[in-house]
Order: sequence, then structure tokens, then C-alpha cells
Amino acid sequence: MHHLVAAYQAYAQTQICVQTPQTLYAPINYILSIGGKQLRPALVLAAYELWQTDTAAALPTAHAIEVFHNFTLLHDDIMDASEVRRGQPTTHVKYNVNSAILSGDAMLILAYQYLTKTCAHNPQHLSLCINLFSQTALEVCEGQQYDVDFETRTNVTIPEYIRMIELKTSVLLACALQIGAIIADAAHTDAAHLYEFGRNLGIAFQLQDDVLDSFGDAATFGKRIGGDILNNKKTYLVLRALQLADADTKNELAALLHTTNVADEQAKIDAVIAIFNRVNVRHEAELLMRDFFTRAMISLDEVNVAADKKTKLQQFAKALMVREV
Amino acid sequence: MHHLVAAYQAYAQTQICVQTPQTLYAPINYILSIGGKQLRPALVLAAYELWQTDTAAALPTAHAIEVFHNFTLLHDDIMDASEVRRGQPTTHVKYNVNSAILSGDAMLILAYQYLTKTCAHNPQHLSLCINLFSQTALEVCEGQQYDVDFETRTNVTIPEYIRMIELKTSVLLACALQIGAIIADAAHTDAAHLYEFGRNLGIAFQLQDDVLDSFGDAATFGKRIGGDILNNKKTYLVLRALQLADADTKNELAALLHTTNVADEQAKIDAVIAIFNRVNVRHEAELLMRDFFTRAMISLDEVNVAADKKTKLQQFAKALMVREV
Repeated sequence: MHHLVAAYQAYAQTQICVQTPQTLYAPINYILSIGGKQLRPALVLAAYELWQTDTAAALPTAHAIEVFHNFTLLHDDIMDASEVRRGQPTTHVKYNVNSAILSGDAMLILAYQYLTKTCAHNPQHLSLCINLFSQTALEVCEGQQYDVDFETRTNVTIPEYIRMIELKTSVLLACALQIGAIIADAAHTDAAHLYEFGRNLGIAFQLQDDVLDSFGDAATFGKRIGGDILNNKKTYLVLRALQLADADTKNELAALLHTTNVADEQAKIDAVIAIFNRVNVRHEAELLMRDFFTRAMISLDEVNVAADKKTKLQQFAKALMVREV
Repeated sequence: MHHLVAAYQAYAQTQICVQTPQTLYAPINYILSIGGKQLRPALVLAAYELWQTDTAAALPTAHAIEVFHNFTLLHDDIMDASEVRRGQPTTHVKYNVNSAILSGDAMLILAYQYLTKTCAHNPQHLSLCINLFSQTALEVCEGQQYDVDFETRTNVTIPEYIRMIELKTSVLLACALQIGAIIADAAHTDAAHLYEFGRNLGIAFQLQDDVLDSFGDAATFGKRIGGDILNNKKTYLVLRALQLADADTKNELAALLHTTNVADEQAKIDAVIAIFNRVNVRHEAELLMRDFFTRAMISLDEVNVAADKKTKLQQFAKALMVREV
């Protein structure tokens, strides 16, 4: 996938906003310039390449997805009052909250403009892409709202949690792949298989993220170990541990997850991880993760193109699942 | 236009969001329920009726424009820290800032969904509508950013001010009319004439708003007289008065417009209005307003449909210009 990320990055460099007022467009250039993994645009291109060779034609669509993703980060960072993103000040810190709201709005519109650009010559594709993109974008908002709502709810179920991460994370990966297939003129069934591949892979990826938050290596994970625990996030590990634990352990965990601004943060993290270990919840999370991963790979198998064409996406999926733990 | 507003309102009633999470959709239903004049959807329908009779077919498009307009109000109210809108608590006051950001984002996406709905059967229309809508939406963001930027600039020119109100207010009226024409299958030139009608009418309307802020009747204007003056807004009246005034008066006005949190608000308002009267700037504003109004009416004349079909839009434009002063 590296050459696809590189191709996308070269294109993105040519798309720096030079419009006025500069005060509206500078924050957009800023958040896009601080990068990230740029998985989503690479997925658009990888899907497109299953059927077509003129990758350049898909670059505006790839950019639409990445601009949209960064719009969600920009507004989420305001809502979460996050100060650092990818090692840099978040946009509302570097500029101000009002700029980050308005520039974020402009990014959502820009995403639609880029999406429309690739499909301009093909009205059939335009309609399919716009509908899928709008539905996905709305689902991402719903996922973010569920995530917020879950902070204050004590009765979140595991299916609700899975649905939340599906909406917040997976559907955009799925949408990136399906849109790549649509603009490559793939059959509807194949585009749908790619969507399912992305949706299940995204859930597996997020479950792995939950595991890494407790059991990962800080250096390779790129975030502090125990961040979810300190934020009292109701991740799969927590929800499943509450089911597996005996009454005393359950009370202990519930009590730990009600504390905020604790004096000894490491002690809280250690105590929660000790409970995770006691009920062996990591193993359960990994089983579930593998289940979603397997479903993803089956969907990829069902895409009707020569097997060797799919190697890139298979390797990408596997690489995503072997992050350091 | 009253029956068009009524037709729109009846449709909007059927479009209350019942999706989950309710926490995302309740703020959307709230801001849409507190109404407003709903001029923009009525303009979509009025334009559509110049060519077609099945008004119901244009209702989703009319709703798209109104949902977009309310999205801008929702986010603008956060940025301006406004607490009251249409006599009701603003959305971020009734709910919270994070809800207002995220629900606003969802409204922008919903607007695209409604826009896509009408055009689903006609890909040619879809492409034209999406492009015009995206361009307009981006311009509205630019207008809002210019408005913010002008607060801290001391060298704003009259052409810059006119351009700002054009972006912030007029282009959406123009877009509403042109989109109504597009989905009615009007000729491109006629759709473009309607756009110009709306664009010039919108500028005239905003200039009149500036005049009413100083010289209107509080009861009919619906806002406090002198609000722009207290907020040190660089309206046409201020910018033109600074040009017309002698050196002493200019300094006096500039000094008044630098004060904030004044003890005697009415004294400040009276002092600024006294200067406006001294340099007779109201007359100049009304001349300019009539100039834009005339241009609007000429563009409407040029639309190639029977004269009697255009009566409704002519009367609407005239009614808009005879608000109580």
C-alpha cells in the first residue's frame, strides 16, 4: 500500500487551498499537512486498482474521503477538548474554536466537491457515490454521538458498543473501499463485498486498538498505555470483564471506572489491567477480533477478480492486525 | 408566497427526524421547529412554479435549502455566543455546545441527502444542483469568515463589505431560486437570470437591514434598534459615513465604534445615529439599495416565461423592500 499512500500524498500536495479568506483555509491546510496514516485514501485507490489501472483518475475521490476524515478529527478534537493530535497542537488550539468550527464545516463541503469531481463525467457513479457518502457521513456523526452518550450511561451492552465502533470507525473504511469500486465501474455485488470487507476489518481494527490500549507497547502504539482506562471508556474489555467477573471483582471494576482526576493514574491503570488479566478478557477480545477479521477476509475472497489482484488488500489487512502487542 | 410557505411547512412537519441516537437528532428538530420566515424554501418553490405545476416534487429540495440555512444559524450562534434566536434559547444554550456542533454537522449532510432526493431520477439535474449547492455553501462559510475578520480590521472598504454580505446572505437566496429552476428543467440562461435576481435582491435586502437597524421601528423590525451599532459592526452606513464625514466627525465616529461595554448604550446609539443624520448617509444607503433592487427586477424581467407567471416573485421582491422604516 506504500506506493498508494505516496501517490495520494503527491496529489494532496497539489491541492493546498489557496482561496480567500486565508483565515478560513489556513486551518484546513494545517490539519491536512500534519498527515496521519492516510489509510482511507489508500483504500480508495487499492479498491479502484482491482479493476482499473489509471489510478490518477481516482485521486480526487481519495482526497474527498481524507478531507472528510480530517473534518471529523477537527470537530471531535473541539468536542473532546484535545490539545494534541499527531504530535502537533490541535487546530482549535493553534487557531481558535470558532475557526475550527467554521473551517471544519468548509472541509465537509470540500469533501463533497472532490467527490463530485471524479464522477462529473458519469452521472450514474455520482448518484451512487453521493448517496453512499452522505449515508456514511451521517453514520459517523451518529457513532460520535453514541460515543458521547455512552460516557454517562451505565447500561451499555456489548452489541451497542460494537455498533458504536462500527458507525464511528468502520463504515468510513467500508465506504472508502466501496466508492473506489464504484468509480472503477465494478459490479454492484463486488462493491458490496468490498464494503463488508472494510466494515468487518474496521471493527477488528478497533477491537485491537482496545486491546493495545491496555496491553500494547507505548512506543509502537503511539499513544499512552491506559488512556481509555483513565478516560473511563466503556470499551469491549470493560464491558466483557463486567460480564465475566464475580460480584466482588465487578464492584471493584465499576468503582474504579467511576473515579476521575485520580492522584495516582498509574495505580488506577494497573488495577484495571489486573482485573482484565484475572478474568482473561484479553483472550476473549482477541477471539472476537479474529472472528471479525475472518469475516472480512471471506468478503474479500468473494470479490470477483483474479486472486493475485487481491494480494495487496489481503496483505494490508494482515499488516493492520499484527501491530505490536 | 404565503401558500408556498404553508405548503413547505406542511411538508417539513412530515420530515421530523425520528432516527437514533435521539441526542443527535433532537437539536435538529428543535432548531427547525422554531421556524423563522422560511423564505428560502418558498423561493425554491416559486422558481419551480415558473415552469412546473407539481410543486410537491420540489419539496425535498426546498427542505434541503432550509436545513442548510438552519445549519448555518446553529453554528453561527455558537461562534457569536448568541443566546436567543427567534425568541427561543439558541440550540447550544438549550442543549450544549458539543451537541450543537455535531447536530449542525449532521444537518449539513442531511441537506445534501434532501438535495439528492429530488434529483435521483435525473442525473443531469443532480450534477448541476450538487455543484451549485456546494459552491454556495462554501461561499456562505467564506462570508461568515469575512464578517468575523472585519470585526478586527480598520480598513474595510465598501466593495469588500458588499462582497461579504453577498457571500453571507445573497448567494443562498440566489442558489434557492436557481436550484428551483434547474429541477423544473428551465433553460440554463433562465436559471442564471433567476440567480442574478436573487443575488441582487439579497444585497438590497441586507442593505435595508442595515438601514432598519438604525432607523427602523423596533416592533416591526423584530430586533433591538442599534444592535449593529452596539456591536461596532462595520455596516454600509458606517463605512459610507466615514467617507462623507469631515475630519472631526470622522474621528468622533471612529472613537464611538471602538468602545465596548459602554455604560449608557442608548447614548452611544443616539450619538452614532446623530452622525448618520448629519452626513445624510441613510439617503445614500437607500439609493444603493434601490440600485440593487432595480438590477434584481431587470434580471427577473429577462426570465423567458409569461409575464403573469412572474407576478408572484415581483410582488415578493417588492414586499421585501417595504418593511417598516
